[in-house]
Amino acid sequence: MPKIVDHEQRKIKIAEATWNVIVQDGLEKASVRNIAKEANMSAGSLRHYFSTQSELFAFCMQLVSDRVKNRAAQKSYDGSSLEAMETLLSEFLPIDEDRRTEMEVWLIFSSKTLVDPTLEELSQLIYDEMRQAVSTVVEGLIDIGLARGDLDKQLEIERLYALIDGMAIHGILHPDRFSVKKTQTTLQYHLKALCK
Amino acid sequence: MPKIVDHEQRKIKIAEATWNVIVQDGLEKASVRNIAKEANMSAGSLRHYFSTQSELFAFCMQLVSDRVKNRAAQKSYDGSSLEAMETLLSEFLPIDEDRRTEMEVWLIFSSKTLVDPTLEELSQLIYDEMRQAVSTVVEGLIDIGLARGDLDKQLEIERLYALIDGMAIHGILHPDRFSVKKTQTTLQYHLKALCK
Repeated sequence: MPKIVDHEQRKIKIAEATWNVIVQDGLEKASVRNIAKEANMSAGSLRHYFSTQSELFAFCMQLVSDRVKNRAAQKSYDGSSLEAMETLLSEFLPIDEDRRTEMEVWLIFSSKTLVDPTLEELSQLIYDEMRQAVSTVVEGLIDIGLARGDLDKQLEIERLYALIDGMAIHGILHPDRFSVKKTQTTLQYHLKALCK
Repeated sequence: MPKIVDHEQRKIKIAEATWNVIVQDGLEKASVRNIAKEANMSAGSLRHYFSTQSELFAFCMQLVSDRVKNRAAQKSYDGSSLEAMETLLSEFLPIDEDRRTEMEVWLIFSSKTLVDPTLEELSQLIYDEMRQAVSTVVEGLIDIGLARGDLDKQLEIERLYALIDGMAIHGILHPDRFSVKKTQTTLQYHLKALCK
C-alpha cells in the first residue's frame, strides 16, 4: 500500500499531466486516455486516483489556486510596502512560464464552468479567495496611511480585482500586444494612482 | 439561386445556432451535426455555407465583434460626455442578456485560441479593434479637457481596457458576486477617477 504522501504526489503528477494536455491541445482532448499517456501510466491506474473526469478537473483547478496562494504566502516581503503589494499581486499575473501555464489552465477551466455545473462551486471558492488577497492589498494601503483619503474601499477592491484578471487575460491571449513589461508597468501605475 | 442577402442571413442564423450550442453545452459539443439540428437544417446544407468548422467559428467570433461595434456606432450619445463614454464602454460588458451571450461566446472562443492557431489572427484583430474603442474614450477625455493633467495616456488605455475585460469576465462567471449594478458603479467610479 503506497504511503499517503506518494498517493498525493501521484495525484499532483496526474494533474500536471492534465495541465499539459489542456494547454497544448485543449480541454476536449483531456480524455483519461490522453492524460494517462502524458503521465506515463495506464488508464486503469489513473482511474484509481480519480474516478471521474469532474473529480480530476476539480483537483487540477484547486492545484492552480493552491500553488498561487502558497507562493504568495512564502514570499519574503522586503522593500517598501508598495513593492510588497506589487509582488503579491504579481502572483496572479502571467509574468513567467509557470504563472502563464497556471493562468492558461485557469482561463480554460473558467470558460468550462459556464457549461459544467460541477466546477461552479470550486470556481466561486477560487474567486472569493483571490478577492480576499486583493482586499488585503487595498486594506493594507489604507491601514498604513499610503492610500488617498477619497478612496471607496469596496469599489477599489472590485476595480483592482477586475484589473488583475483583465491584465492576466490580455497577457496570456496577446503576449505580443500586452507584454510582461506592460503588465508590470500598468500594475505599478495603478497602485501609485491609489496613493497620496 | 438564393440572393446574396439570403445567403448572409442564413450564415447569421447558423452562427446564432452555434452560439446557442456553445453557451448551453460547450465548445466540444459544437459539432456540425448538433449545430445543424439547432438551426433546423441538414448537416449537408450547413456545409454549403461553411466548409470547415474553423471557418464557422471564425464567422461566429467576427459576428460578436460586429454586433458590439454596430451597436456602439448606432448609439445616439445624449447627456454629458462622461455618460456618453460610459454608454460606449457598456457595449463591452454583460449588462443584459444579449451582451451576456456575446461575452460568453467571446470568452469561450478566446480560451479556444490558446490551442487553435486558426482563430488567433481574428482574435488579434478583435483585440486591436476593442483597444481602439477604449483609446477613443481616453483620448476623448483628454481632448475635451475633462481628464486630469497627470494621466499617462498609453497606460490609461491599457488600464481601462484590462479593467473592462476583467469586469466582463467577473460579470459572466460570477453574476451573484459581481452584479450588473456593481459593474456599472465600478465603471463610473473609474471614469470619474480619470477626471479633474
